[in-house]
Amino acid sequence: MGLEIERKFLVNHRLWQPPDNGILYRQGYIYTHNGNTVRLRIAGDKGYITLKGKSKGMARSEFEYEIPLQEAGEMLDTLCDRPLIEKIRYRVKVSELMWEVDEFLGDNQGLILAEVELSSENQEIILPNWIGEEVTQDSRYYNSNLAKNSYSQWRK
Amino acid sequence: MGLEIERKFLVNHRLWQPPDNGILYRQGYIYTHNGNTVRLRIAGDKGYITLKGKSKGMARSEFEYEIPLQEAGEMLDTLCDRPLIEKIRYRVKVSELMWEVDEFLGDNQGLILAEVELSSENQEIILPNWIGEEVTQDSRYYNSNLAKNSYSQWRK
Repeated sequence: MGLEIERKFLVNHRLWQPPDNGILYRQGYIYTHNGNTVRLRIAGDKGYITLKGKSKGMARSEFEYEIPLQEAGEMLDTLCDRPLIEKIRYRVKVSELMWEVDEFLGDNQGLILAEVELSSENQEIILPNWIGEEVTQDSRYYNSNLAKNSYSQWRK
Repeated sequence: MGLEIERKFLVNHRLWQPPDNGILYRQGYIYTHNGNTVRLRIAGDKGYITLKGKSKGMARSEFEYEIPLQEAGEMLDTLCDRPLIEKIRYRVKVSELMWEVDEFLGDNQGLILAEVELSSENQEIILPNWIGEEVTQDSRYYNSNLAKNSYSQWRK
């Protein structure tokens, strides 16, 4: 299992400087009736299936399994709803914490989100200078919602 | 992947004699909006996640992965819709073909279904004498539907 505790922030485009370790992610969702999420993902040359429970505050149960790349592609093509999410993910370590920064492509172009995984909801974190507004509780920024209702449709 | 081609039949209770290789199956579903199926299954002491596309005639795409038993149990308990399906599965080889016979428990008690996987839709098969009416195209007998609308509610 387990339980994933995450905080999510907008990124200040002016101050953010992408490192050179970006990996292309392509992912899709199978939308469920009970609010849980089934995600298929290709990250670089690896395939994954991930099941997530409903969010409770910052926490969410998550089960992820690596699967053959080709089968992940077949499921993205045949089982997942459209459109897919495409983004470049960077990993940046700041003060012992690993940040994942996603620069979205396609209909979500212009959106850059940073996530950090914590070991408890109360953990103190040092925010890098390129971190902007917190959006942890804003469901529009869930990747599963960005696929259905892209940033281009509601950005100010 | 692949593509699964199956035919499904009712079993004649009077003529069917269960062998002694029965395994207890416990499985649940996460219902999706697009008609694909996400199934979590515990079969004996093994756990599986399976994704299936929509049926086209006798054929259906299927992707199955073995996962840790404990995680399968956690997902059955927390992510799957209720009720779960419980059944005893027997495997019987008849004339080079492997039949899977499911004796359902709980709300589907009294239902016994036999499935055989084929390599093509036109493959000839020899039906054992305990095979009854074919129900391949009758969606009430999909396990995912038996979970929502059990045999006890519509049997004659």
